[in-house]
Amino acid sequence: MTIKLYGITMSTCTAKVLACLHEHGAEFELVPVNLQNGEHKQPAFLAKNPFGQIPALEDGHLTLFESRAISAYVAEKFKGSGCDLLRSQNPKEAAVVKTWMEVESQQFSPAISPIFYQSIIVPILYGGTPNQTIIDESSVKLGKVLDVYEKKLNSSKYLAGDFYSLADLHHLTYIYYLMKTPYGKLINERPRVKAWWEDISSRPAFKKVAAGLTLGDKN
Amino acid sequence: MTIKLYGITMSTCTAKVLACLHEHGAEFELVPVNLQNGEHKQPAFLAKNPFGQIPALEDGHLTLFESRAISAYVAEKFKGSGCDLLRSQNPKEAAVVKTWMEVESQQFSPAISPIFYQSIIVPILYGGTPNQTIIDESSVKLGKVLDVYEKKLNSSKYLAGDFYSLADLHHLTYIYYLMKTPYGKLINERPRVKAWWEDISSRPAFKKVAAGLTLGDKN
Ligand SMILES: N[C@@H](CCC(=O)N[C@@H](CS)C(=O)NCC(=O)O)C(=O)O
Ligand SMILES: N[C@@H](CCC(=O)N[C@@H](CS)C(=O)NCC(=O)O)C(=O)O
Repeated sequence: MTIKLYGITMSTCTAKVLACLHEHGAEFELVPVNLQNGEHKQPAFLAKNPFGQIPALEDGHLTLFESRAISAYVAEKFKGSGCDLLRSQNPKEAAVVKTWMEVESQQFSPAISPIFYQSIIVPILYGGTPNQTIIDESSVKLGKVLDVYEKKLNSSKYLAGDFYSLADLHHLTYIYYLMKTPYGKLINERPRVKAWWEDISSRPAFKKVAAGLTLGDKN
Repeated sequence: MTIKLYGITMSTCTAKVLACLHEHGAEFELVPVNLQNGEHKQPAFLAKNPFGQIPALEDGHLTLFESRAISAYVAEKFKGSGCDLLRSQNPKEAAVVKTWMEVESQQFSPAISPIFYQSIIVPILYGGTPNQTIIDESSVKLGKVLDVYEKKLNSSKYLAGDFYSLADLHHLTYIYYLMKTPYGKLINERPRVKAWWEDISSRPAFKKVAAGLTLGDKN
C-alpha cells in the first residue's frame, strides 16, 4: 500500500514532510489539493484533517495530519532506511532531538512565520503590501532565537548533536523562503548558523524539495 | 539519581510536566526558580535552558527543556509504571497521539494562551487592564478548535482514541485556568468537551497539580 501525501510542493508544511520522505527514499504518491478552489475546506478533505489544512497523510487505514506529527511518523516507520532522524536507538539522544524539535515549533516558527507571511504570501498571493512593523518585530525575535543557535552550533555540528536529525530538517522550508528575501541576512550574519544552513540545505533529499518551493520566484 | 524539575507549581508549562510525573508516580525533586528575581535569565539557569524559560529537567547528565519534550521523555521513561501515555507499543496509536499532541501545540495553544495572558497574567502580575479585542479574537479561534474537539469526542472518549494520552494531558493546565475566567463558557457550552474536561481534570495525578495552579485565586 503506497503512502499518500495530500498537499502541494510549494507549501512549507507539505515540503517538510517531502524532505523527510526523500531522506528515506520512501515510496509515496503526492496527491495535490487545490487551495484556490477551497478543496481543503470541503468535506472530503475535512475527513482527513478536520482543521482543513495541508498536509495530510494516508497509510492504509491510518490518516494523520499536522506536518510535524506526519514527519515523525515517517521517520519512525522508515528508520531502517537511510538515517535514523529521531535517534530512536538512543533514548537520551532521542530526548534531545525532541527538545530541539520543540524549539523549532515553539521558538523558531512563531518568529519566522510572520516574516514569511508578510514578505512572500501577502504580496504574491494577495497583491498586498507587507506590514513592515510586523516584519521588524519578528526579525528581532528571530534574531534572538538564531543567537541561541549560533552558540549551540559552536558545541555541536547540528542542533541536537553531531548528527543530522528531524530537528534540523524541520527548519529547512521556512529558511529556504527566508533566503529569497532581504531578511536572509539574519542567517548570513551568523557564521555558524550560515554554515549549518549551507550544510543541511545541500542534502540531496532537500534539493529535490527545494525545486518545488517556487513562491517568490520571478517568472 | 533523582530527576530534578526546575520550575514553579503555578506555571502552566511546569504543571504540565508535574501532571505527567504524577501519572507515573515518578520520584522527582521540584527545584523552584525565582522568576521575580530574574533567576531564569542568569547564566546558571541559561545553561539548562538557553531560552531562559521554565521548565527544565535534569536526569543525571541529561538536561532537557521545552515542556512538551520533557513530558514526552518522562512518559517514555516511565511507560512501564502507570499508563503508557504515548501508546509506544502500538505505532499507529502512537502516531495518532502525536497528531493530537501537535493539535494542542499548533491549534489549541496559540488560541487559548492570549486569553490566559490577558485575563489572568495582565491584571494579576502586571496590574494592567486586559485587552478585550485580543480576548474576543482568540475566543473565536478557540471556539473553532473546540468545535473540532466536540465532533472528535463524539467518536472516541479521548482525543486520540478510547485511551487517556499525553495529547489530553497537555490541555489540562490552560483549561484549568480558563475555567477561572468568564471564558470557561467556551468549554461548558460544548457538552462532549465539558464531559472530557471533567473526566481528565478529575484524575488524581492532576488534582495534585491543580492545587498549585493558584494564579487568579482570591486570597
Ligand atoms: N500546523 C499545521 C499548519 C498547516 C498549514 O498552515 N498549512 C497551510 C499551507 S502551508 C494551509 O493549509 N493553509 C490553508 C489554510 O489554513 O486555510 C502543520 O504543521 O501541518
Ligand atoms: N514553549 C515553552 C514555553 C515556556 C514558558 O513560556 N515558560 C514561562 C512560564 S509558564 C516562562 O518561563 N516565562 C518567563 C519568560 O519567558 O521570561 C515550554 O513549553 O516549555
